[in-house]
Amino acid sequence: MQEISSKRIQNVVDHFASLPSVGRKTALRLALHLLKKSGQQIDDFAEALKAMAAEVKFCKNCHNISDHAICSICNNAGRNAQQICVVENIQDVMAMEATQQFSGVYHVLGGIISPMDGIGPDELNVATLLQRVQEESTQEIIFALNSSLEGETTQFFLHRKLKDSVHKITTLARGISFGDQLEYTDEITLGRSILNRQLFENQSN
Amino acid sequence: MQEISSKRIQNVVDHFASLPSVGRKTALRLALHLLKKSGQQIDDFAEALKAMAAEVKFCKNCHNISDHAICSICNNAGRNAQQICVVENIQDVMAMEATQQFSGVYHVLGGIISPMDGIGPDELNVATLLQRVQEESTQEIIFALNSSLEGETTQFFLHRKLKDSVHKITTLARGISFGDQLEYTDEITLGRSILNRQLFENQSN
Repeated sequence: MQEISSKRIQNVVDHFASLPSVGRKTALRLALHLLKKSGQQIDDFAEALKAMAAEVKFCKNCHNISDHAICSICNNAGRNAQQICVVENIQDVMAMEATQQFSGVYHVLGGIISPMDGIGPDELNVATLLQRVQEESTQEIIFALNSSLEGETTQFFLHRKLKDSVHKITTLARGISFGDQLEYTDEITLGRSILNRQLFENQSN
Repeated sequence: MQEISSKRIQNVVDHFASLPSVGRKTALRLALHLLKKSGQQIDDFAEALKAMAAEVKFCKNCHNISDHAICSICNNAGRNAQQICVVENIQDVMAMEATQQFSGVYHVLGGIISPMDGIGPDELNVATLLQRVQEESTQEIIFALNSSLEGETTQFFLHRKLKDSVHKITTLARGISFGDQLEYTDEITLGRSILNRQLFENQSN
């Protein structure tokens, strides 16, 4: 790697390069781009980082990111707290919210059971989920996890833990994506979508 | 775009997204990755940015980045100050230094003449170059500019300004890259490399 003749820039490059999918060449380009901006703009960036480190909290209830102890979703009286959607991470909450189709609340596991990576239930926010279900008389748990081996394992594990406390446990519908063509759909998806076929009336909703 | 439920994170995402080739999805991923680190690590990043904004200077002599008023290259008595290599930007200095083949000094233009982008000689560090040539009795100017239309224009312009003051004005050798195969070399490069062919003895150096 080329040597950078300024220790100050080298430091910033090192920090950028520690981020995912940012290599050293890209990190250098980002640092030099910042240098072209005014000192005030770089300071603003630094202050934004410090404010994030100091003030961003995780909701005590659902573990979503929040500026307060309880996040805006859990705090919203208009949302159905008896309906908990279980997701892997914060990005999944954002993806679900972007659909504007869900009016319940969330529970962020903070990962997924993956013995290969040494992640078991104890590393995830499972205990707080069980506690919530006990305390809040939850009516429905919706699993919104990826359909990977780890996702299925996690669903299986949680289902066993929850099935005696919660009457209704559901999972996201799997099927053919909108716009997908039948001939290019993989066999598992197509097979499952015929097994789980829906009444035609449902489709018009 | 998905809404982010924390103003603090939104701020950091906005700053990341203002960097070149960082989209909003990537910016969010970078911010959330940072959040997983300790507060101390994020603070370190912020401090590195602030230190860069406050302390990085541009060398008064050659306009390269520097932690001091004069950069380490200009300050190095072991380098030949009578040989000035003219480059477009700071990255080019690093690329040249990485070759370890040049023992002179540099002059960073800070861009290239490009009428389409409204960049003329007045926007570049041309006046200081002419001044250096007058004051330092420069023996050789080496143009190390990209072989684009703008690069050729800039060379042409500088050559006219410098030819009466400097005895020797050279430009980087253009030719077939090491490892390139003749049949895949473009016609202009191959044509020039036959016109500018070198004595075989030179090659063994």
